[in-house]
Amino acid sequence: MEYKFSDRVSNLKPSAIREIFKYAADPEVVSLSAGNPSPEAFPAKEIAEISARVLAENPISVLQYSVSEGYTPLRQHLMEYMKKEHNTGSDNDDIIITTGAQQIMDLCSKSLINEGDVVICEAPSFIGSLNTFRSYNAKLVGVKVDSDGMNMEALESALAANPNAKLIYTIPNFQNPSGVTMSLEKRRRMYELAKQYGVLILEDNPYGDLRYSGDNVPNIKSLDTDGLVIYAGSFSKVISPGMRVAYCICPKPIFAKLVVCKQGNDVHTNIWSQYVCDEFITKYDFNAHLAKLREIYTKKADYCMALLDKYCAPKITYHKIDGGLFIWCELPKDVDMPQFCKTAVKNKVCVVPGNAFLTDENESCHSFRINFSTPTDEQLEKGIKILGKLANSL
Amino acid sequence: MEYKFSDRVSNLKPSAIREIFKYAADPEVVSLSAGNPSPEAFPAKEIAEISARVLAENPISVLQYSVSEGYTPLRQHLMEYMKKEHNTGSDNDDIIITTGAQQIMDLCSKSLINEGDVVICEAPSFIGSLNTFRSYNAKLVGVKVDSDGMNMEALESALAANPNAKLIYTIPNFQNPSGVTMSLEKRRRMYELAKQYGVLILEDNPYGDLRYSGDNVPNIKSLDTDGLVIYAGSFSKVISPGMRVAYCICPKPIFAKLVVCKQGNDVHTNIWSQYVCDEFITKYDFNAHLAKLREIYTKKADYCMALLDKYCAPKITYHKIDGGLFIWCELPKDVDMPQFCKTAVKNKVCVVPGNAFLTDENESCHSFRINFSTPTDEQLEKGIKILGKLANSL
Repeated sequence: MEYKFSDRVSNLKPSAIREIFKYAADPEVVSLSAGNPSPEAFPAKEIAEISARVLAENPISVLQYSVSEGYTPLRQHLMEYMKKEHNTGSDNDDIIITTGAQQIMDLCSKSLINEGDVVICEAPSFIGSLNTFRSYNAKLVGVKVDSDGMNMEALESALAANPNAKLIYTIPNFQNPSGVTMSLEKRRRMYELAKQYGVLILEDNPYGDLRYSGDNVPNIKSLDTDGLVIYAGSFSKVISPGMRVAYCICPKPIFAKLVVCKQGNDVHTNIWSQYVCDEFITKYDFNAHLAKLREIYTKKADYCMALLDKYCAPKITYHKIDGGLFIWCELPKDVDMPQFCKTAVKNKVCVVPGNAFLTDENESCHSFRINFSTPTDEQLEKGIKILGKLANSL
Repeated sequence: MEYKFSDRVSNLKPSAIREIFKYAADPEVVSLSAGNPSPEAFPAKEIAEISARVLAENPISVLQYSVSEGYTPLRQHLMEYMKKEHNTGSDNDDIIITTGAQQIMDLCSKSLINEGDVVICEAPSFIGSLNTFRSYNAKLVGVKVDSDGMNMEALESALAANPNAKLIYTIPNFQNPSGVTMSLEKRRRMYELAKQYGVLILEDNPYGDLRYSGDNVPNIKSLDTDGLVIYAGSFSKVISPGMRVAYCICPKPIFAKLVVCKQGNDVHTNIWSQYVCDEFITKYDFNAHLAKLREIYTKKADYCMALLDKYCAPKITYHKIDGGLFIWCELPKDVDMPQFCKTAVKNKVCVVPGNAFLTDENESCHSFRINFSTPTDEQLEKGIKILGKLANSL
């Protein structure tokens, strides 16, 4: 049988990161390529407690079919929490629980994007989201990222040049992969431009709670008086990614379409895990847990940057981070970055080549991404030492 | 803001069944409209045991990111089990774990169907799948269902008339909603026709293990020597639907595309629940559990049919079932079925109007679907008594 696939997927490739995981499976390879939370960051004891309790008290509700919108108490508690802590969400918004934030990208693409429509995104940006947009045959237009977020002149040019732009996709806090946080001024400007051009903003904020230095910047959604912003939040980095529980706060008409699309996508998100997240954020001290995560990751981030300074300077430079899980490293302009990453793998350290995060993977790129949350301190030192040795021998 | 949705979803409506659930939320209403497993059918104690164990022994793996293909031991054990018990799956196939079987419909649609391509399905068929196909702008062509499955002459005509047919979607066992099981002869004929016309078969088998009388009929996938059949299996009816764990056994090239699409859809299925399903089918007596479910549901099905005989004859006729969770009831040709269903809701009993299951909902239909697994025996008697009273007073 010769299989004929749909036009939208015939050119779709497996995520470069997921493919790199195959090398990472070799126990001798130090993987700096993942984006997994640190093993010490999981509230495993609390999850086990809650799980045992809800299964004992309410087994049928925890295991039975549920509604596509998500578990009602979790939706209510998240709306209250996000309003109180982040001034995010209004009476014009509603909230849907999704199977990870990746599903928010999928449902938004499905609901909002016709084939050939434009999604404007940071260049570089999160490969998983880019691939979802691609899978709906969206045209990706990348806008360069300054040290304080998307370049606003370039964004305006992109909006002016693309009347069929439907979405601006942004990760405003500790962006994956660049580590950059968008300034409040730029958030305001992006919102104005979105309003002016009648384009929606998809604000993806998986790392917002993981700030290690500096002050929080308000979410773009907190500026949303016109119903322009779709906010994607997630428990993947702060409770557990394996449970696949995320949430989307968005204007009610969009919410209604996302719910219909979710019915056809997976009916509803694992309800057991929704119960667990709900109890964890309401019956435990969620803010204290977040503070503990910040403590864990501040140490790891500082350690990682110190190692980069020690072993990789001056050949590898990097953008100092205030939060998140990634550091964006740059090689000298005369170095062949993809070749460098291949050599690194042969030397048993795995990083993600930066062009994987571009809207056009064939564009020239001298950066690569490393992650410091997954490896142990020993692995971090071993891996970065190898990278430094390779870079400085070039 | 005036929202512009994509062409594919602008005409998409919420599932009629999910909308009916809103009436069913009224505690005074007897709902015969759901498809939920019976509360007594959940292995809640075993799930709690397994969950406590895996969270104690292996907390990080259970809560961490995992791979899009699914938990490797579960995939291996399911392939072995399905080969041994149902001669289903070969060396040319692979298996992907999905977030409920609904996601199999989504991933197959995304991978295989261009806008305007034809999906041939039973008429009536499962509304959830039809809506997924619709959400990719597939054209649905319904083929009438005889008492031994899809009418093969009509199927051949549909294949001949639609050269852009990509999929034949079938629920061969205890079809939802008709309750019909396809004969082996027709399965063979469907396979031949699929081969002749170069069309894939999507075999959806959520109820196969719930046979109450008669002999098992081989899966269409067990006849698949040419790589034509995509098999969808699910734990929703036999362990827990709330966990959203299903599996798809299909030819390797299709598997590869489904994995890429799943990366963009939800990255992977809740891994904790995959561990639980794996331990349940390997460390417990899964076949004994299935036998227990059959015992529970045989009783409920027999009871339901006896109530229909007692209260609803002669006005309401029905197709006697050998398995599954649904009974397809027919009103006399001169009765306005949608009006009957509305009157039933006013009289506090909720059923699903049959036209919801048609490829064209505006087609005339005199049937409605009732479910006997969710209501208690008391609710069943109360509900069917009301239906009988209404029907016999017409």
